[in-house]
Amino acid sequence: MTASLKGRLTDGAGSSASSVHSVRGYASGKDDYLVRLRKIEGQVRGLQRMIEEDRWCPEVVTQVASVTRALQEVAVGLLGDHLHHCILAAARNSEHDGEARLDEVATTIRQVVRL
Amino acid sequence: MTASLKGRLTDGAGSSASSVHSVRGYASGKDDYLVRLRKIEGQVRGLQRMIEEDRWCPEVVTQVASVTRALQEVAVGLLGDHLHHCILAAARNSEHDGEARLDEVATTIRQVVRL
Amino acid sequence: MTASLKGRLTDGAGSSASSVHSVRGYASGKDDYLVRLRKIEGQVRGLQRMIEEDRWCPEVVTQVASVTRALQEVAVGLLGDHLHHCILAAARNSEHDGEARLDEVATTIRQVVRL
Amino acid sequence: MTASLKGRLTDGAGSSASSVHSVRGYASGKDDYLVRLRKIEGQVRGLQRMIEEDRWCPEVVTQVASVTRALQEVAVGLLGDHLHHCILAAARNSEHDGEARLDEVATTIRQVVRL
Repeated sequence: MTASLKGRLTDGAGSSASSVHSVRGYASGKDDYLVRLRKIEGQVRGLQRMIEEDRWCPEVVTQVASVTRALQEVAVGLLGDHLHHCILAAARNSEHDGEARLDEVATTIRQVVRL
Repeated sequence: MTASLKGRLTDGAGSSASSVHSVRGYASGKDDYLVRLRKIEGQVRGLQRMIEEDRWCPEVVTQVASVTRALQEVAVGLLGDHLHHCILAAARNSEHDGEARLDEVATTIRQVVRL
Repeated sequence: MTASLKGRLTDGAGSSASSVHSVRGYASGKDDYLVRLRKIEGQVRGLQRMIEEDRWCPEVVTQVASVTRALQEVAVGLLGDHLHHCILAAARNSEHDGEARLDEVATTIRQVVRL
Repeated sequence: MTASLKGRLTDGAGSSASSVHSVRGYASGKDDYLVRLRKIEGQVRGLQRMIEEDRWCPEVVTQVASVTRALQEVAVGLLGDHLHHCILAAARNSEHDGEARLDEVATTIRQVVRL
């Protein structure tokens, strides 16, 4: 069974189980990420208004760069939480589990760095 | 048709409406940018759902990287349109105008490249 | 003094040598770019020494990130000089010349932003 | 063969030499990183020649972008090796060791992503 399937089944089993095990690294910081993503959603709507109002290109691009940075902060935050919660746990469970999950993390880092 | 090509074709038609808005390089490609930004807004809402559903961290991060890339595409598209429409016009108006606007563009490129 | 400012001042001096080379936007700032690239070459050799001496990974990675940033600064500097010198000249020559060179610049910006 | 794979195979051979150096995640892949960094050093010298020969700006910038990407590949490779070798070991030693080193990794990832 894959880790991700296991996670979803455990989650499905009920909130009391998930609160004990916090299968997701970000689970305890969920609210923080949701607040940040809602702010980013608002900024993307703001970009649409800027385009509709024919705002000066460099201003729009500067604002796009700012939203991009906020999204990258979310990505790096999630990666850090994932390393702390999931990787440490996997590493302590078994060498094989740790290795498999680190390969996945390395792939994810490549996507964030954009190689 | 790309926003930038569409822009140049519309400008070529030289309608009076376009001359009203022609101060913005992206003006004639507005609809294209709005469609892309609405899609990005939907993707950001999708990220919130992924967090709410406790989806596996690397999946969320991969999706954040994809939204980041879409935003960078918008930034580079806007920069290209700006160079085509505003900078060429400024350069033909006067050397001083061209120089001043290019300094602004160089600053904006730095923000997109994130230096 | 930045390469770009130095470039403009040197151009202002209007030496015959500079007019020969003025096809390249960075021509008058060549020395500045060569100094920066030699420093970067030295930093890359420093990275090799760090690896040979088994230095701590995060330290090496931090230093790689610093060299990467120095290279990106060179790229953005060259782009800015190119816009100032070549694009403005092309734009004043003919609309077609300006357009063709701006398409090339837009492609180059995409490579620097890595899309 | 990637540096990281080579590293793991060499570790498997369990040479006494590798046990001396095994504090560094990349130790067994050192040669691979040195080859890549020497190639990058050569590319940086190539950039100097391009500048000296007044090569066309966009060509130089494209080449700078290519060297930047090669450096980022080194950074991400080192990070991956570090996670595999140092972090897994630290995590198995003690929870506190793993946490401390992961904080360091998260900081390093931020520098590579450039936030």
